[in-house]
This record gives sequence, structure tokens and C-alpha cells, in this order.
Amino acid sequence: MIKTDILIIGAGPTGLFAVFEAGLLQLKCHLIDALPQAGGQCSEIYPKKPIYDIPGFPEVLAGDLVDNLMEQIKAFQPGFTLGERAETIEKQEDGSFIVTTNKGTKHHAPIIAIAGGLGSFEPRKPLLENLTKFEDNGVAYMIKDPEVYRDKKVVIAGGGDSALDWSIFLADVAAEVTLVHRRNEFRGALDSVEKVQQLKNAGKINLVTPAEIVGLRGGDTLTAVEIKKTGEDENIILEVDSFIALFGLSPKLGPIGDWGLEIEKNAIKVDNALDYQTNIPGIYAIGDVNTYPGKLKLILCGFHEATLMCQSAYQKIYPDKKYVMKYTTVGGVTGFDGTKKESPKAVVKAIE
Amino acid sequence: MIKTDILIIGAGPTGLFAVFEAGLLQLKCHLIDALPQAGGQCSEIYPKKPIYDIPGFPEVLAGDLVDNLMEQIKAFQPGFTLGERAETIEKQEDGSFIVTTNKGTKHHAPIIAIAGGLGSFEPRKPLLENLTKFEDNGVAYMIKDPEVYRDKKVVIAGGGDSALDWSIFLADVAAEVTLVHRRNEFRGALDSVEKVQQLKNAGKINLVTPAEIVGLRGGDTLTAVEIKKTGEDENIILEVDSFIALFGLSPKLGPIGDWGLEIEKNAIKVDNALDYQTNIPGIYAIGDVNTYPGKLKLILCGFHEATLMCQSAYQKIYPDKKYVMKYTTVGGVTGFDGTKKESPKAVVKAIE
Repeated sequence: MIKTDILIIGAGPTGLFAVFEAGLLQLKCHLIDALPQAGGQCSEIYPKKPIYDIPGFPEVLAGDLVDNLMEQIKAFQPGFTLGERAETIEKQEDGSFIVTTNKGTKHHAPIIAIAGGLGSFEPRKPLLENLTKFEDNGVAYMIKDPEVYRDKKVVIAGGGDSALDWSIFLADVAAEVTLVHRRNEFRGALDSVEKVQQLKNAGKINLVTPAEIVGLRGGDTLTAVEIKKTGEDENIILEVDSFIALFGLSPKLGPIGDWGLEIEKNAIKVDNALDYQTNIPGIYAIGDVNTYPGKLKLILCGFHEATLMCQSAYQKIYPDKKYVMKYTTVGGVTGFDGTKKESPKAVVKAIE
Repeated sequence: MIKTDILIIGAGPTGLFAVFEAGLLQLKCHLIDALPQAGGQCSEIYPKKPIYDIPGFPEVLAGDLVDNLMEQIKAFQPGFTLGERAETIEKQEDGSFIVTTNKGTKHHAPIIAIAGGLGSFEPRKPLLENLTKFEDNGVAYMIKDPEVYRDKKVVIAGGGDSALDWSIFLADVAAEVTLVHRRNEFRGALDSVEKVQQLKNAGKINLVTPAEIVGLRGGDTLTAVEIKKTGEDENIILEVDSFIALFGLSPKLGPIGDWGLEIEKNAIKVDNALDYQTNIPGIYAIGDVNTYPGKLKLILCGFHEATLMCQSAYQKIYPDKKYVMKYTTVGGVTGFDGTKKESPKAVVKAIE
């Protein structure tokens, strides 16, 4: 059982910044995210795209924003349960909660902060017989650890940035990379498309287009896929160790929708006049996952919501303590790892 | 008469970021500030101090944050009325407002956003006969343009960072710099204290301590100051062109307090459940100047408040238009100066 002060569901920018604000209040955080890494959409969907409306950054790549936030919260040593989806919640007699993931990992905390963005990202799956049987036995929809594919025969399906970028990356890792797409045209960053063209010309990526995977073969694990090339009568049987279907991710509120929270337009209603708490005391919702009159789904709004939420959480955890806010410029930042950052102090010194 | 869409009172970080969010909505902004430059406290009080709680910046100097914000809003070409304090407001028949400064500059806008921080910064003044008479005639409490002092004889009074830093700066500009402080000890950044010591040793700054200015002399303009050195019977008469008293600035809500706004604990009450509007429709208050249940006086909260305020202002100015938010990552940023920043577009391209 993982124990923490604030259990944050969703490790996007809002959830990450909550760790910082909680840390200033000496509260520990643990984050759960269905994606294999922190950063939410910023890391998974558009890491190389610039954002222009983060205050103080005329331009910042989404991936860099996440890196900066990870650096900012490092001293507060957050825990992470990644690649697992928060599934069930049970309220304990003392008012605290136990949250269990789809893989059975249990987390215990007095405060829950749902920072789930648009929901947990679920892959779009192809319609294929025996698909479920081969999941985690040769079929994947996300790449959590590219080393898994070292010296393996891999077939990737898809026509967007993920399919292009992973084909490029795995060309140097896997024994054989085949990229299958139902059109000849790919949609993505120009340099990614050009790089795949080069790797194809150099024989490092096999390209099969326009084509689709139409069948899976194997016993307990996948051993081959059946590919139908448009306009050809005979299907290709390709021996592979892995089939990675990269057809995009679509966010779903998922199991959180069944936790008894008040939901409106696929988002969680919160009290924005006070502390972004939901209808269940002790459960907050911050960032894109919440809704209230005038709500804007902007990262900068999530930062504010996270900050006010942490103050409220502190009062719940320590009802008898009075917290006096100290500016970081004055008080510095004292990490849980023993580090201390602070402004150089003024000296009082005679001039003679 | 200066005309704009949103008249922002206070050019600190919150007011500056409001320009950006308004710009995304194609609304023009003009800012009034009592200080001689943009940035509020960040520029005037602690430009060289690090802030640790701006989201995405593990550490940023206050002055750099202001520079970044100025760069971020540049394309939206804000207007500035600096060194003047917003004094009176008159509501027009059409619901718009005219705001006049202490120097008589008039501004006309349908929307007012008060982003006044802790108030307008008023200098602490020494108790001296004839002080008012010499103000702007040899006596100053802030340095708006250091060139005014070129080749002049200047006496600076004070014992903190401002007195130290301006003595250093003017040592290269003025004909003569005398620094007077009532103690031998100065309080400031170590390198500033050491630099003043060096300049004193080199004969580039005259130091008179412990001492106080006790009299001002002159006709229409200041010609000399009378200095009393502790423990000495005879006062020093020093011929000077300028006396700059740098005893610190203290924020005062000032004339805004008389505008009919609901005030609580020296701050302006706003509707935080909706749009940070005050009790007067069309007047908003954002950042440290406002108050509501759970309010935290943090820069990052001002950013959020500015953003929601701009949306509400847009609806007031264009009641019949429906605004559909576009993410900057998707839609880019189109400046009023004809510039366009946007994410590199994806291509659709065949691989052969």
C-alpha cells in the first residue's frame, strides 16, 4: 500500500505543479497516470509543439514545459504509479481514501486531487479477431519501454506522428521494422516524413502501403500478421514478434465517472468559489478535468486551481494549524531531499 | 484622450499578462502605472531576486520574469502611461469610463481592469521644511531618468539597495555623488556594498555617515543641503543640484479607494465564482489588489484571474459574438503588429 498526503490522479502539468504547491506546505504527493510517463498530453501527444500562452514564456515546447515542471518539483520527491489507470475508490471510516489501479496497485491518502485532464488516454484499437488474446503477448498500442523491441521483428501500423517517430526510433533498435498504413500519404512533421523516406530508401524500414493488418496469428504469443495490400489478391503473411498499432489515443473519463462525483459535460463539477472541491469532501478536481461557470481549459488555470486546492487540503489535514503563507522569494524552497534554495540574503555591513 | 478596449491600472506581472490574454481575443490594452517602468514590484523592489513558484520556472529573477512578459505581449502593442497615478474615474452615459491621472492624462475605455498590486507605490519622505516646494525642483524620491543627473552634483540619502545601486550607477554619470546615511552600516546585496566601498576608496563617491539631511536651501530650485553628522556640532552645507531621498516605497491603495468599490482589508472585493468583477459592472480587479474567500496573493493566481477577466470583458464588449477558444498550440498567436507565431504545420506527404 502506497501512502501519501495528496494522491494526484493524472500527471499532466496541473498535477505536477500541485506537487510543488503541496511541497511548500510540507505535504507529500503521489501521482497515478495511465500513460507510461509524466506530462500528460504535453508529453504523449505534442511534446515538440510550442505553447504560447504559458505566462512568462513567449514560447515553450510542451515537452520542455514538462521537463521544467519535473525539475521544479524534484526536491519534493513525488512518487509515481505510471502506466496504470485509477480504477476504484473506497472511502475509509476515518474519511481517507484507498484508490486501486487496473493493475491492483493500492494507494492510501486523506486527500484525492483528480487532475485527469480530458481523461485517461485510451488507444484506438483495430477491429481484429483474437486481438484481446494477444494484448501484452505481442500486441501493443503504446510504447512504454523501447528496449522491449531490441533485436525483435516489429510491425507498426498507423499514418501519423507516433507511427512515423517510433518507426524512426525502432529502426535502430529492432531487428526489422515494417510500417503499414492504409494510404501512401503520411500526416506528420515534415522532417519525420522525410526521415522515414530516407530510412526506407536505405532499407532500414520496410514500407507496406496502402495496406492494412487484417489478421493475427500465433499460439500463446503473436508470431505473424496478415497484411492486405490494396488491389492485390493475395495477402502477405509477415513473421513478427510484435505488432504495435498506433492509431491515436482518445481521452475517456473512464472509471472516475463512476465514483459518485457530480459530472457535467464529461467534466467534474467543482466549487470554484472556494477550493475546487467536488461534491465528495476530500476529493478535489483541478485542471481540464473540472468544470465551473466560466471555466477555461488552459494549463495556466490548472496551476491556479492546484494552488488553491493545496491550501484547502492543508486545512483538512491539519485543521488546528494556521498556515501563514511565505513568499518563495523571502522564504526560499526547502525540499524533502534536504536541499534548500533561497534568495541571497542581504548583508548589513559598514562602509568605512 | 487615450482610447482603448481594456484600461489596465497597474503594470505588474498580472496587468502585463492581461494584455496577452486580451490580445488573443483581439482586444487592445493600455496600462497606467505610478512607477516609471513596467513590472510593478518585480522591477522596482526586487528585480534581482529569484522567484521559485512561477509554474514552469524552477527559478526566475523577478526582473527576467517581467522581461519575458514584455516579450510575450510585444506583438499586442500595449500603450503605457507611466509615472502617473490613476486618480479619478467618471462613468459615461454609454457605460464606458474616463480615468484621469494625477498629471491630467485622460483615458477612455469600456472596461477597466485594476491590477494595482498592493497599491501605488508612494515614497517615504523625510520630514524637512520646504520639502514640497523643492519637489521636482531638485528633490526626488525615485529616479525616472538617470540622464537628468548627468554632470550634476547629487546627494543621495538612504541605506538600502536603492541608495547603494543608484550611487554606483550615478558615480559614472553625475559630476559628484554624495551618499548620506544615518548609520555606518548599509543593508543590501553584498556585491553592492562592496562596490560602494571601492568607489568610495577611489574617490568617486563621497560618503557621509552617520549623518542626516536636516535642511534644504535654495530659491526656486534647490542649491544646497544641510547635513548633520552624528556627534559633530557644526552642520555641513553641501552645494548640490539634486537631493534624491531613497527611503523606500510603501504601497497605498490611494485614490482607487474612493471610486465606490467594495473594499475589504485594503483590497477590492470581487466575484471569484465568475469573472473577478467588482461591485461596479465593467470594473474588474485582478492580482494582489483583489480579495475573495481563499485568496492567495501570488503572481500565478493573478495570471489566472487576468485570463478569466478578459473572457468576461470580451462578452461585455461584444455581447452578440460567441467566442470559441482556440489553443495557441493549434491557432498560434496573431499580433496587432502583423506578426504571426505558430506551430509548424503537419504535412501530408507520400512516402514512395
